[in-house]
Amino acid sequence: MLFQPIINIAEICAKKNVKEIILSPGSRCAPLTLAFVRHPQINTRIISDERSAAFIALGIAQQTKNPSVLVSTSGTAVLNYAPAVAEAFYQNIPLIIFTADRPPEWIGQHDGQTIRQKEIYGKNCKASYELPVDYAHPDAGWQIERTISEAINISNTYPHGPVHINVPIREPFYPSENERFEYTTNIKVIDRVESEKCLTDKTWDKLFKIFQASPKKLVVAGLQHPNQKLQQILDDFQKSTGIPVITDINSNLHGLQNIIQHTDLILATKNEKTLKELAPDLLISFGGPVISKSTKLFLRKYPAKAHWHIQPAGNVADTFKTLTDIINVTPKYFFSEIMRKAHSAKRMAQSAWCIAWADREQKAQNFLTNFFDNKPFSEFEAVSEVLKNLPQDSILHLANSMPVRYASILGISVGSWQKAVGNIANCPLPTANLGAVDLRLAIYSNRGTGGIDGCISTAVGAAVSTKKITTVLSGDMAFFYDRNALWNNYIPENIRVIILNNHGGGIFGLIDGPDKLPELDEYFVTKQPLNAKNTAKDHNLDYFCCDKREELIKYLIEFFNVSRKAKILEIETDILTDRKVFNDFKNMIS
Amino acid sequence: MLFQPIINIAEICAKKNVKEIILSPGSRCAPLTLAFVRHPQINTRIISDERSAAFIALGIAQQTKNPSVLVSTSGTAVLNYAPAVAEAFYQNIPLIIFTADRPPEWIGQHDGQTIRQKEIYGKNCKASYELPVDYAHPDAGWQIERTISEAINISNTYPHGPVHINVPIREPFYPSENERFEYTTNIKVIDRVESEKCLTDKTWDKLFKIFQASPKKLVVAGLQHPNQKLQQILDDFQKSTGIPVITDINSNLHGLQNIIQHTDLILATKNEKTLKELAPDLLISFGGPVISKSTKLFLRKYPAKAHWHIQPAGNVADTFKTLTDIINVTPKYFFSEIMRKAHSAKRMAQSAWCIAWADREQKAQNFLTNFFDNKPFSEFEAVSEVLKNLPQDSILHLANSMPVRYASILGISVGSWQKAVGNIANCPLPTANLGAVDLRLAIYSNRGTGGIDGCISTAVGAAVSTKKITTVLSGDMAFFYDRNALWNNYIPENIRVIILNNHGGGIFGLIDGPDKLPELDEYFVTKQPLNAKNTAKDHNLDYFCCDKREELIKYLIEFFNVSRKAKILEIETDILTDRKVFNDFKNMIS
Repeated sequence: MLFQPIINIAEICAKKNVKEIILSPGSRCAPLTLAFVRHPQINTRIISDERSAAFIALGIAQQTKNPSVLVSTSGTAVLNYAPAVAEAFYQNIPLIIFTADRPPEWIGQHDGQTIRQKEIYGKNCKASYELPVDYAHPDAGWQIERTISEAINISNTYPHGPVHINVPIREPFYPSENERFEYTTNIKVIDRVESEKCLTDKTWDKLFKIFQASPKKLVVAGLQHPNQKLQQILDDFQKSTGIPVITDINSNLHGLQNIIQHTDLILATKNEKTLKELAPDLLISFGGPVISKSTKLFLRKYPAKAHWHIQPAGNVADTFKTLTDIINVTPKYFFSEIMRKAHSAKRMAQSAWCIAWADREQKAQNFLTNFFDNKPFSEFEAVSEVLKNLPQDSILHLANSMPVRYASILGISVGSWQKAVGNIANCPLPTANLGAVDLRLAIYSNRGTGGIDGCISTAVGAAVSTKKITTVLSGDMAFFYDRNALWNNYIPENIRVIILNNHGGGIFGLIDGPDKLPELDEYFVTKQPLNAKNTAKDHNLDYFCCDKREELIKYLIEFFNVSRKAKILEIETDILTDRKVFNDFKNMIS
Repeated sequence: MLFQPIINIAEICAKKNVKEIILSPGSRCAPLTLAFVRHPQINTRIISDERSAAFIALGIAQQTKNPSVLVSTSGTAVLNYAPAVAEAFYQNIPLIIFTADRPPEWIGQHDGQTIRQKEIYGKNCKASYELPVDYAHPDAGWQIERTISEAINISNTYPHGPVHINVPIREPFYPSENERFEYTTNIKVIDRVESEKCLTDKTWDKLFKIFQASPKKLVVAGLQHPNQKLQQILDDFQKSTGIPVITDINSNLHGLQNIIQHTDLILATKNEKTLKELAPDLLISFGGPVISKSTKLFLRKYPAKAHWHIQPAGNVADTFKTLTDIINVTPKYFFSEIMRKAHSAKRMAQSAWCIAWADREQKAQNFLTNFFDNKPFSEFEAVSEVLKNLPQDSILHLANSMPVRYASILGISVGSWQKAVGNIANCPLPTANLGAVDLRLAIYSNRGTGGIDGCISTAVGAAVSTKKITTVLSGDMAFFYDRNALWNNYIPENIRVIILNNHGGGIFGLIDGPDKLPELDEYFVTKQPLNAKNTAKDHNLDYFCCDKREELIKYLIEFFNVSRKAKILEIETDILTDRKVFNDFKNMIS
């Protein structure tokens, strides 16, 4: 007989609106598998490679903004989840991870698929539970029910994150024939009512005094998922105060009209005087990691007098070594309140400084517009073309390590959107005023940990959760590392995989240090000969390949069209040319 | 300037004969990478997918019987090692894992590839260290040197296992041009002298009394790596005492003349009287996990009065729930000593019982000889053919989960060796007396944890460490799960990959429980459409494919021939036929 408390786990999840389940095959987890598969309100998928499965679950949770669930058997299956669990932890993605386990008395007794699973994700996981293995006492049922509610609540509380539930299960794993299999539908769940934090008038007065007294105010937005309301507030804030807003490529604020997104170019100058002038007195930051090394080094070298980080809860990183105040509210609340106060106060005279930033941003944009003219075709240019041609209202996943860096340098060009008009059916034409909230491109990147290990799987997870075209832009290393992302029966027709293939980890030739070593090619770049043609064939994806600018531009239009089949576009470039073009770029901007 | 204590790590490893290094690409680990790559006595390989890299290192250590070294950058790279670290821990394979890390002050500060790495392998690792990040005080150098010596000593002490060394490294990671890069060759190492444990005469007297007083003595050998001396001693022991020796497929004792290897057939009987008769009074076990579920259930159901487990040190599993005495000596010492005592004592009258076991073993062998006649071709038969045709003096890796189970049922048939004669150049013809120590087939299987996640990589690691033909026999799930095993520049010509492809996890149709569920195919078997043809093409391996008995027999001869290229043989079977044949088998034996 299967055990009712285990069957009920699915019922609790459904009641708490946790309905996207990624299973991996196994016998010990069979009771959990069946509980989820048989539940009428729950959606299950089965993925054999647990490393990929976990990143797919992460991609789904990113889209649904709700925990997705992983279910694995015991043993090393559990450890294959670990990279995605860490990424979810540092990127604040909610996941519930059920790992079936041997009952405690059998650990270390030479049974198969048995390792020490308790708290196995250590400090790279938000919380960890172990369910009881004996259900005889009624409190065991209460403990299980309560734990599932609590785990989901914790996972779904800001900062969101992965929660591990280890589930020791004794045999039998399978129901006997004609066995009753019913959920206890009146089961109790514990819900959590979301509350909003705010600041007292006294605190506001204190903060606003500093705000007013700081002539050079700068906002820096790190990684965050799309948030249309915040974007609108920031747009108003920026326009009414003129304060420069530096947006990370992953901040999903490219819809703002006056963003500073080219800090890698602006701050490349060696002119100390200019840099000092650009340095803020008051730095206001929010969101997660920032890609741009230039931004980080600049803010560390020219520290602001005050640095406020706006974050409702959780640990705060002192990324720029300047942090003075943690303000535990949402950025939305903070910026709308401070805007209200700024409106009622008299306008501050900081325009010269604002103009300096805006001018430099404009110059950087102009520089980029013509940079690739007369340059040989390189992956840097390929990224530029891809970004220009992305369909409206689509999703872009930027793989580690070079694609997200290239995109961070290039930024999302507002004007370029006009080119993409009409490529995609069902996408409304953009209005004449191509600004702010019309830019519905959502950008994601696994920058919680910055690994190359699950970038394609994460995009697959996103793609199965939406009808929008979902593009993943990857290098060859990240693609082949994670090619099992395609080894499942759910590859959706809306996914577009773009591979920048220069047959190795090109980043090592682009950063200072390894580029001059005799070991560069063999031990850092790690040359690899594969292209993705056979992989595409194996997994029944349409395959396009090009190695020329003109071909790429031609292919891109067709590539993003809606189709019945997923597609791969492989862009072959020469690694030495890639290196030369990027070094030219670095020389020209500094 | 790079730091001398980090450079010296390679020197200490070389001095302690730890010379096989698997690197993965990264910047933070560059000082370690260069230290190992530039050391004249050290052999380095670079593998991009860390999951595969770690299993390759495990395969190498299995062959060399010496720790191999892993070097990774920081972040999730470290977590991708975890499955192999757990396998090494439970299979007692020595590994030294260096993971580069951010310095402690940068943890949690939103820098890329930064997770909490300290003791990250938790309880599934033998020991864990963190090196100091400041080298200013001379004691830091002493600590690093001492730690490397200690880690290698611990890894290499029975029971061998993985040892983790977390290495926080500050920039610079790369030497400046013309920077001196020299090892401190007179560096101190701490060596460990191996000692042998033995028993006092008093203890022997006590044990031997029980030995003499037990009419039905049974030896069970679990997983262990080939050990020719032990095999000789056991052969003598068995012949002189007549005591039945049950050998697990992974015990590497198929060279013994009178082994009991068909317990799955012998113990399938439902005749309680027979089973009771076969049950031992005194059970003597050694080695690691035992595959055969029949053996385990039988020994649990009919418990011996005394159960001695022979193991020099470390935790002992109570696999059969009968353990009474842990005897902390080597099996070699134990069996040679007890044989000496038995010789001097008068021969015990237990021959009826011995004959009962031997008879049943003979019957089981006879049954298997003709079992596949008139059966449709199945993967079970394919395994039988492969086992019969393996080249002499070669290495066989049995992947989880069905190949190792099939092989465990079938056993290694001594007579069949004659067929293989002459296939392989450089293999001496077997002597007319095809017995005992002439059977130089070494068998390995990742039964520490029983995962499917690194079976191919482990075999690749073995193959690069030997010139012998190294065969890995895998199902399709384990093969595709770990196909990145082939994504490196070191695939040696002596590897032979045999894939039993029935397009799914066939095991779920073979075990009781899921076979009757409506969810069987979708959620347990997890059907997958791939074959390995394109994978073989991508990685430049010769590819053979067959789906008929006659083709297989024809191909096998050529397949095992020495060649300039690695080879894949894919055996396509029908999953329903596989199920039918195996169910017929189970019905016939019970």
